[in-house]
Amino acid sequence: MTKQIEHKVKAVVWRNDELVLLDQRLLPEKEQYVEIRSLEQAIEAISSMLVRGAPAIGVTAAYTTVLATQARYAENRSGWKGLIEADLEKLALARPTAVNLTWAIDRMRRCIERTSGDPRAIVLEEAKSIHAEDIAANVHMGSLGAQYLQQSSRVLTHCNAGALATGGYGTALGVVRAGFTAGKVASVYADETRPWLQGARLTAWELNKDGIPVTLIPDSAAAHLMKQKCFDWVIVGADRIAANGDVANKIGTYSLAVNARHHGVRFMVVAPTSTIDMTIPSGEQIPIEIRDASEVLTMAGVNLSPLGVSAVNPVFDVTPAELIDVIVTEKGIVERPQKGSLERLLNR
Amino acid sequence: MTKQIEHKVKAVVWRNDELVLLDQRLLPEKEQYVEIRSLEQAIEAISSMLVRGAPAIGVTAAYTTVLATQARYAENRSGWKGLIEADLEKLALARPTAVNLTWAIDRMRRCIERTSGDPRAIVLEEAKSIHAEDIAANVHMGSLGAQYLQQSSRVLTHCNAGALATGGYGTALGVVRAGFTAGKVASVYADETRPWLQGARLTAWELNKDGIPVTLIPDSAAAHLMKQKCFDWVIVGADRIAANGDVANKIGTYSLAVNARHHGVRFMVVAPTSTIDMTIPSGEQIPIEIRDASEVLTMAGVNLSPLGVSAVNPVFDVTPAELIDVIVTEKGIVERPQKGSLERLLNR
Repeated sequence: MTKQIEHKVKAVVWRNDELVLLDQRLLPEKEQYVEIRSLEQAIEAISSMLVRGAPAIGVTAAYTTVLATQARYAENRSGWKGLIEADLEKLALARPTAVNLTWAIDRMRRCIERTSGDPRAIVLEEAKSIHAEDIAANVHMGSLGAQYLQQSSRVLTHCNAGALATGGYGTALGVVRAGFTAGKVASVYADETRPWLQGARLTAWELNKDGIPVTLIPDSAAAHLMKQKCFDWVIVGADRIAANGDVANKIGTYSLAVNARHHGVRFMVVAPTSTIDMTIPSGEQIPIEIRDASEVLTMAGVNLSPLGVSAVNPVFDVTPAELIDVIVTEKGIVERPQKGSLERLLNR
Repeated sequence: MTKQIEHKVKAVVWRNDELVLLDQRLLPEKEQYVEIRSLEQAIEAISSMLVRGAPAIGVTAAYTTVLATQARYAENRSGWKGLIEADLEKLALARPTAVNLTWAIDRMRRCIERTSGDPRAIVLEEAKSIHAEDIAANVHMGSLGAQYLQQSSRVLTHCNAGALATGGYGTALGVVRAGFTAGKVASVYADETRPWLQGARLTAWELNKDGIPVTLIPDSAAAHLMKQKCFDWVIVGADRIAANGDVANKIGTYSLAVNARHHGVRFMVVAPTSTIDMTIPSGEQIPIEIRDASEVLTMAGVNLSPLGVSAVNPVFDVTPAELIDVIVTEKGIVERPQKGSLERLLNR
């Protein structure tokens, strides 16, 4: 069952020596795949959000390193390792908040250091491992998270932490998928997630494809519906988790967490350990990306607001660890995260 | 200064024996006025949100009663009072949450009862009084509310509680206008207010017209910006206030109030006493309008979500009195409203 669902939606594919990405900017209208042939194209795809979602960005970065390796090795068989470093540094700057980007690049860099002779097969193997491990981690987290839910839970999710945001299957939506199959999830609500509408466009699209019914709500209706006792759990993904358990995720997550605590709704974060950044002590140090105001001021080419009006568009926020009931990773579950919890988890 | 600002934007106008409404569905793209000539047209205008905002709906209902009086009196000079009652009952059902609708109808009904002979002049006079009193109340509340702010406050508002939502000048935006002029308001942020985008479309439009700079934010960014200490006050209007001080207002207001309390941001509600419903003991009894899912699922004719996905669209929520720091009315200010506060205010 799990396996079948896992293969329906793929945001990132390696096929015939090419990186192929589903253009998420066009969903749900069009399901269009784009072949990525160069580092520059990949950086543009990540920064323009053709591909998005922390783990999917990580997997994309791994395959992009393969493309860069192929290009640099063809260019200079003896000096390519010196040349590729600048590429990896440029790639790491494509988006600032999701740590999976630099995590994947660091892992690919270590693989490159180990190579001697033709690196292409071994570097591709490493990228494929990162991809496969991400899917396996999601499936495992789905099962762990679903076990943690009481029977027939009513779940609210935010943004898209699904197959589209990962190597496949999804983090928060992995728990939804596993939970739905096991009868642990009775209903799924999704915040539409302004301004980019990941909930309306992506989460609804992929759950719809899997036959999991989903009801959209405006982001700001969540608190009202919590008061009406419509949800047992808020389940979200993460873009970066600081050492103390503070979680950066899509803008609006923090508001949900404050409201969830106020209403006694439980709050679950689902993310692979590649999202944990032990070099950062707390959420205050996580860089928060500010994107262009036009994402707020226009939609489908229509001005939503009079010309001359300004907008601020911070696209992530930080939820402090004390508002989180449980973090689910592929290495296990951390309840009520606090200083030391994640270190113990990683050293298990 | 105040006077000048007051006359720039008019949602409801009585001109040449006709009710003229600004079609708020078309803003900010088009500034189009519609002549309303019948009860049926007025009911359609209110329920389709051509005109919206609790006090503006009240003023519209008053003028609609004039139109109905003219029609019924022309139809049957002796029996018109018997005929018009069904009209008023139909009008009262145009939208459920804003109590200003029934408040205005009740006041017009009492005026009708007092008439003898040709009622048309006296009924029109009453409607004009309701309109003028609403503007005067707004200007007075603007001054009261602004006095209450510390110098150079940073204000966040939600939805549109401005000139467009009232007879003129505005409730929450009345305080913003008066405060901006007096140096009490240093910056104004507006939630875009999904799904109808009253903040992006209407608040931005009318503040822009008055030369008051405004910055839009996605609704769900408010909590993050509160944590960054960007706001001193949240200032909103109201659609109905229960006897205990609970406030029904645009969906998302409650979420803001929970977050404001969590972050130590103060919370002000500005509404004329016509918005207070002493027949309803608490917010739990306020009917919350659920509008069509299409308001969430589509925008500017574009599907935001795949076909077949459902949405729920509750368009108001209730903020309990204990989360409100101050209610500003034209009769004075109530700090930390609780049982008995509003009764004492009304009996002043």
